[in-house]
Amino acid sequence: MKNIDTVAIVGTGLIGGSIALALKKKKLCRRIIGVCLHKKSLAAARKMKAVDTASLSLEAIKDAELVILATPVSVILRLAPKISGIIKRDCLVFDVGSTKASIVRKLSGIFPHFVGTHPLAGSEKRGVANAKADLFQGSLCLITPAPGTDKNALSKVRSFWRALEAKTVIMSPARHDQILGFVSHLSHLSAFALIHSIPNQFLKFSPCSLKEATRVAGSDSELWADIMLDNRVNVLKAVSSLQKNLAAIKKTLAGNDRAELARILLKAKIKRGSLK
Amino acid sequence: MKNIDTVAIVGTGLIGGSIALALKKKKLCRRIIGVCLHKKSLAAARKMKAVDTASLSLEAIKDAELVILATPVSVILRLAPKISGIIKRDCLVFDVGSTKASIVRKLSGIFPHFVGTHPLAGSEKRGVANAKADLFQGSLCLITPAPGTDKNALSKVRSFWRALEAKTVIMSPARHDQILGFVSHLSHLSAFALIHSIPNQFLKFSPCSLKEATRVAGSDSELWADIMLDNRVNVLKAVSSLQKNLAAIKKTLAGNDRAELARILLKAKIKRGSLK
Repeated sequence: MKNIDTVAIVGTGLIGGSIALALKKKKLCRRIIGVCLHKKSLAAARKMKAVDTASLSLEAIKDAELVILATPVSVILRLAPKISGIIKRDCLVFDVGSTKASIVRKLSGIFPHFVGTHPLAGSEKRGVANAKADLFQGSLCLITPAPGTDKNALSKVRSFWRALEAKTVIMSPARHDQILGFVSHLSHLSAFALIHSIPNQFLKFSPCSLKEATRVAGSDSELWADIMLDNRVNVLKAVSSLQKNLAAIKKTLAGNDRAELARILLKAKIKRGSLK
Repeated sequence: MKNIDTVAIVGTGLIGGSIALALKKKKLCRRIIGVCLHKKSLAAARKMKAVDTASLSLEAIKDAELVILATPVSVILRLAPKISGIIKRDCLVFDVGSTKASIVRKLSGIFPHFVGTHPLAGSEKRGVANAKADLFQGSLCLITPAPGTDKNALSKVRSFWRALEAKTVIMSPARHDQILGFVSHLSHLSAFALIHSIPNQFLKFSPCSLKEATRVAGSDSELWADIMLDNRVNVLKAVSSLQKNLAAIKKTLAGNDRAELARILLKAKIKRGSLK
């Protein structure tokens, strides 16, 4: 990646903060401007020396060559028109939102050099306090160009993520949302439903397996309401698939069908074993 | 716990092996006899010095003062009558099976000094190779006497688990199975169903959250078919509860009801946060 002079990060939380720390560590730019709507978050980013300039105002990003949008999905969609009136016409812009179809559709029409990306490196923990320079090292970053995406911008953004040691995969926004609806959004939804299913008075007997299975139910509810609704068509399909599989197992229990139950569980074990 | 001369462990897998290692480390008995139906497992237990004598035959346990049944649930139920014909009349017997009602019902009628127990310290990894002396340290062990359980045996078994540094809780077998149906069996069942719901071609994009949510789907299928069928009445209730909660979330997605979805997710986050 060619060195950049000024990078602006809008949203200095876990992902935005980790990008900033990685850029600093690898000396990939001269100056980082952090913008965040939350004073506390900004102060933390400044204290951690993740950013050189911290501002509550979007005006601060006007001279950036690269703008990274790292707020929740609905905030990206809301701020984009305002940002386009502030930054330079030739500014490169990419986002790190968890859904891609609606963001790429809207932002491609707003910014001439926009690329959608999604680093698969989140956590149920939010905020710059949990940020780390090596968050993306060895992780997967999905890059989701639209047919009209500027090829030069795409190449630069891919180099950016590779410089942060992420493995990049290019796919369409629609394909991204379909895949993530299953591999990420469904397992979050399932964790939310699972924890609701445990009677309160039984919680104190929770073994490690339940704690682990429901860890992501501790994720931010507003962020996840955003993600699930933005990708609702795919998430609805994924939930239906889970409901079908639950019903199949339930049927073997109701019918005391040991052979079929063991067959389903063995197939699950083999499939789970194939996950790297 | 008063020192014991000879302890026999039937089933030298993860739990049986870990008990053996803990007894050795804490010098709580003079001699450990390990019995297992699998040659490999026995050889491994001998190699790890978990047992002093390793045998494929139940006859080896005849002189034990304490017999610990650490095989899968169905094997415990199957071997109990045979074992009762081999051991001494005053021998103390306890099991570590994952379900309790059927085991306690049957074994209380077979052994005069029997106590049901369930250490909540398993893993999706099986076998003595994964055993460790501190597996039970700080963990919870549920002890499930029946109305007719010998009080002296109960007290000895409780001391045994406390000597291994487990926290013990006494409850009825029925209550145990009801609680475990939710806090353990349901989250396993949900993991099995979740991994089945992910299209194969999407698996390579699995983020950490999915790997974690489905870790226990890698558990032994025969063992879990046993557990779920033995506790099917409670597991069926637990699955119904999960289905109800999934349907509630699905409804908010279908109806694009952000307020209700965010409310459900926030309640889940708070509930998950209450897990120690």
